[in-house]
Order: sequence, then structure tokens, then C-alpha cells
Amino acid sequence: MEELKRTEISTLGEFGLIDHITKGIEFVNKESVKGVGDDAAILDLNGSETLVTTDLLLEGIHFDLTYVPLKHLGYKSAVVNFSDIYAMNGTPKAITVSLGISKRFSVEDIEALYSGIRLACSIYGVDLVGGDTSASMTGLTISITCIGCAGKEEIVTRDGAKENDLVCVSGDLGAAYMGLQLLEREKSVLAGGDGVAPKFEGKEYILERQLKPEARKDIVAALKAAGIRPTSMMDISDGLSSELMHICKQSDKGCRIYEERIPIDYQTAVMAEEINMNVITAAMNGGEDYELLFTVPLEKHEEVSKIEGVHVIGHITAPELGCAMITRDGNELALKAQGWNPLAGDDGE
Amino acid sequence: MEELKRTEISTLGEFGLIDHITKGIEFVNKESVKGVGDDAAILDLNGSETLVTTDLLLEGIHFDLTYVPLKHLGYKSAVVNFSDIYAMNGTPKAITVSLGISKRFSVEDIEALYSGIRLACSIYGVDLVGGDTSASMTGLTISITCIGCAGKEEIVTRDGAKENDLVCVSGDLGAAYMGLQLLEREKSVLAGGDGVAPKFEGKEYILERQLKPEARKDIVAALKAAGIRPTSMMDISDGLSSELMHICKQSDKGCRIYEERIPIDYQTAVMAEEINMNVITAAMNGGEDYELLFTVPLEKHEEVSKIEGVHVIGHITAPELGCAMITRDGNELALKAQGWNPLAGDDGE
Repeated sequence: MEELKRTEISTLGEFGLIDHITKGIEFVNKESVKGVGDDAAILDLNGSETLVTTDLLLEGIHFDLTYVPLKHLGYKSAVVNFSDIYAMNGTPKAITVSLGISKRFSVEDIEALYSGIRLACSIYGVDLVGGDTSASMTGLTISITCIGCAGKEEIVTRDGAKENDLVCVSGDLGAAYMGLQLLEREKSVLAGGDGVAPKFEGKEYILERQLKPEARKDIVAALKAAGIRPTSMMDISDGLSSELMHICKQSDKGCRIYEERIPIDYQTAVMAEEINMNVITAAMNGGEDYELLFTVPLEKHEEVSKIEGVHVIGHITAPELGCAMITRDGNELALKAQGWNPLAGDDGE
Repeated sequence: MEELKRTEISTLGEFGLIDHITKGIEFVNKESVKGVGDDAAILDLNGSETLVTTDLLLEGIHFDLTYVPLKHLGYKSAVVNFSDIYAMNGTPKAITVSLGISKRFSVEDIEALYSGIRLACSIYGVDLVGGDTSASMTGLTISITCIGCAGKEEIVTRDGAKENDLVCVSGDLGAAYMGLQLLEREKSVLAGGDGVAPKFEGKEYILERQLKPEARKDIVAALKAAGIRPTSMMDISDGLSSELMHICKQSDKGCRIYEERIPIDYQTAVMAEEINMNVITAAMNGGEDYELLFTVPLEKHEEVSKIEGVHVIGHITAPELGCAMITRDGNELALKAQGWNPLAGDDGE
């Protein structure tokens, strides 16, 4: 018998695998405007743009129920999808929710999960319109698809950054990752149930950033109100470094960002100190911040700087200059995409 | 500490659980026309109807890789979603594919799976526009969402059946279930790999119905060509009995169907005989046929009878008459929804 070739998926990683299996795809429908490679796909259904994004969350890979309450998990599962639609400058309208549920879970557990999903829908004005529910052999599987809308002229993709554009981020970075480190540290205490309370005092913000992130609907609205249409935009789910490289690669540009301008919350810095980690590494590669990364024309500097919660952290350059961070001591550090990659790790069977 | 209530999900079953967790949902967006409870959700995006359906397939629950080739699995995963859109009298346009992949799978495995998905897309004229790929702790998870279109006047839901309407089905029933029984019987041979060939001769049709089902795009087109708009329609994924009860419940009607009119293929009958199963039970409760069940006004009898592959099996009655099958010996047998229910079984952790 002929021996079959076997290539381990870890040799490609998530993005490599997606590139590999989706290469050569050509659209047959005039409605299909944009496919794989942005926060959401774009369909043109009767002259109006429809956005579609989907996320698959698996127990043991994306969440650990030892420390994630089911209601929070439901909330976050919905919000990360809304975030992808906002990152296209669109408005999320509807979601479908599919669940795979093992026998470990009760009706009350699923109610708790759904209460979080429905809370997120109610806060963001999104309708829950369908889904699929099934047994699973092991653990909990959550697959959410979000459908959004945007005017044709409004949509912002990842490939429009121009030379000299300002690189902006909303909020602060690295907090969700530090919240995860904190939960991992206190996991034994939480699992033990022996009356010892986990040490969360003074760390409420990073915990909330990990357990109950929000999508930056407010920033999208503020940009619109200020008359600013970003030239490119995406949400920061895998870490600033990885996302910046996506925008630069797809726009065929380079960038320079400044270490001293990267917004970091006090609690993030304290936690990084406690676990002897460089806080900039957390901000650059931590992931799950769900803040917006976007570029705006240089002449919008004044207007964009006025928007609360927006930070200008650098600028776009010619492609041959590559992507780099200028450190506090004036050195140039090339960016690496060592963002969170669940396919490169040692998890799995 | 207060003891938390724990209700086993098996006490509700899939439909009971969905009803329970989605009750009281009220739409906030004018775009949301119809949610949970049909083959697909309906969104009205700028005056044109968008259909959304999603399916979650889990290894060990929905498929067994001992006897399902990955390419076939990919094909079927896509086609079952297209089937849901056709069942609304719509046209599937785009899908997103999310995969959870354990270390057991190689790049070549995922290529095989995708080749099936892409083949289905190419045959049905659907674009693959996005997705999400991740590691999983165990097994393979496939979540597909399909977006479709339909003119406002074209959409057919489950709730429009009228008294005296004819009940019609396409193709034949029970074959996919008999194919599954055959594969289960030959599983030990297939797993053993000791040179003994599985006995598939003369059973190619039921095997194909299980491994490579098709969506009835042709029937939807034929109905349109004949100027017939069904009053209600759905696809048969859980068995005729269960689906008929959905249509009757949602239309607030009853029905009478005739045992002798239920279309059954010769191979299905032979296989049922071999395993000592009543072939009508397979047709009524077997599931995975992906044929269309629909109702048409009585005056369309002649036109609908002319369509190749369509069988009139009964009629719609007043609700107080309930749902029943008239057996060959003239008795009335009340229909029961003992369709395939992966949440009521003893699978799971």
C-alpha cells in the first residue's frame, strides 16, 4: 500500500492552514465581495452590504470553566463577534448560536450561558435568530455567527492603509492577557473549594477585561460623529503586533509605532511586574483585548486625538521599511507575529 | 450553601431545550423577520430577504470517521446547509466554515475535508467566504453557516399549510438511515483492515444516500417552473414523522398520509428486510434524507403530480383530527416524533 503523506498542522499554524486550504478560491456569485482574510466577509445583497463573521469556541482551548462563569462566557462569545462587525465599520444585527453540549451540563448551565448571550444581544441591539443544538462527546462547543450591515461607502477593510497615515488604537492593551494570567495563578485556589479566597483585590479591571470584554461600538460611533472614516481597521484579538502586521501586509505598507505611546492600564503593569513579565510583551502579543486598531489620514490628527479613548501610537511607512517598534531608548525592534495561536501549541489529542 | 437545581438536558430533548432557552425572545431590529423555528432565519436587509442557517457537526455524534471519508464528510456538511436554504424556497449564496481540529488530523486530512466542501460549493454555485480554524482537545468539530437569498414573495415557511392542501415529498425516504445501518454493520470489517472486504454490493444507492446526500435544488426549480409556490415546506433531516408534525403544529393543522404512498427505494426495502426492521419505520423516523416535504393547494394536483420525483402522500386536515398515517390495512396510526434526537440518547460524557 502506498504510504500517505502526513504534514502536521503545527508546521503551518492557523493562518498558514487557512491560506493553504482557501487558496485558489474564486467567487461564482456576483454577491460575494470579499471572503477570507478580514474581520468579516462582505456580501452585496441587493445593493446593501451584508457582513458575516463567525467564531468557534472550544472548551479546554478557548475557555476553562474552572474560572470562567457560564454567563460571562456567553456574553464574551457574543461580544467577540460583534467586535468583528464593528471592526469593519458596520453594525451587528443578528446572531445564530450553535452549541455542542456534553452530559456534564444541565439545563440550568445552558440557561446561564444563554443569559449572557441574551444580555450581550440586548446591550448591543442584536437579535438572536437561530442556531443548532446538539449533544457532544466531551465538553462544550460554542459556534456563533454574526450578520451585520453597513452602507457601501462605510465599510473599512484591512487593506486601505496609506503612507503617512496615523496608527491609532482604542482603550488600553494587555489587560485581558494579564487577567488570564491572574486566573491561571488562582486556578488551584478556585478549583480547590477549600474556603481559601482567590486574591483578586485591586485587580478587578484586568479580570473584567478577560472575563467580560466589550466591543468598541462607542469608538465606531465617535469616529463617525467626527467625520473620520479610517483607511483601515481591525479588532485586536491576537495581539497588537500580529494585527499591525496583517494591516501592513494587506495594505502593502510598513509601520513605525512608539513603545512609549502604547496605552497600558496601571493594573496591567502591576500584574506584569508581579509575574516578572515585560508589560510591553503583554500589550504587543497578549491578545483578547478587542480594542480597535485603525489608521487615519495624517490631516485628521487633531480630530482623532480629541476622541476619548483613542491613542495615536505611530504611523504607516513605505513597505520596504518593514514593521517596527521604536523602543523608549530609541532602538528599532522588528515586529513579530507571535500572537496567540491555538494551532501551534501543544494542546490537542 | 444553597444547593443548585440540576435538570438533565435529556428531560427536554433538543427541541424542548431550544424552546426553553429561546422563549421570550423579542426582536429589536426591524431587519429581523423570523428567528428560531424554521429551516433558516429570515432577515430583511434593505428590502431583500436574506436567509441564514447553521449546522454544527461533532465527531462521535454526527459522524464516525471509521467509515466516513473526510471528503464525503465535507461535501455532506455543506450540502445539508444548502438544503435548509432550498427548504425556504431560497438560493444558497455563501458559507462560512469553522473547524476545530485535534492533533490526530494532518494538513492532508483537512485538505480532503475542504475538497469535499469546495466540490459541493462548486456544484451548487455557492461561495466559501470565511470561517474560523482552531485546535480542539479531542476530535473534529465542523460548524457551517449558510447565507441565502430569496425574493420577499418567494419565501416558504413551515406555517402556511391550509386545510385540504396536498402533502408532497420528493425522492424516496429511509435510504440514508439504511445506509447508516449498513455502515454500522460493516464497521468492524472496515476498522479491522485485515483484508476482508465489506459487503456493499447491490447497496450502492443506500450508501450514497448516507455518505453523499444531495440538496433538492432541482425540485425547487421544477416547482418554480410549474408555477407552484408551496404553502409550506421544510427539508426532511429528522424523519418524515417529526417534520410533518412540525408543519402541522406551526400551521395549526392536522394531516393524513397513506402508508402505501410513501416512496421507498428497492435497496432500502432489501436492507430493512436483512436487519428485520419495518421499512416504514425507517422512512418515517430514519432521518438524514434531505428530501423536501411540502404542501400545495389541492387545485395544483395535476401540475405537481407531473413533476418527476414528487409524490403526493396525503393531505392536510383540520387541527382537531391530529396527525396520522393510514396503514395498508386501513387503520389510523397517530404520528409520533421519534426522529433522530442526539440530545435524548446516551451519548455524551
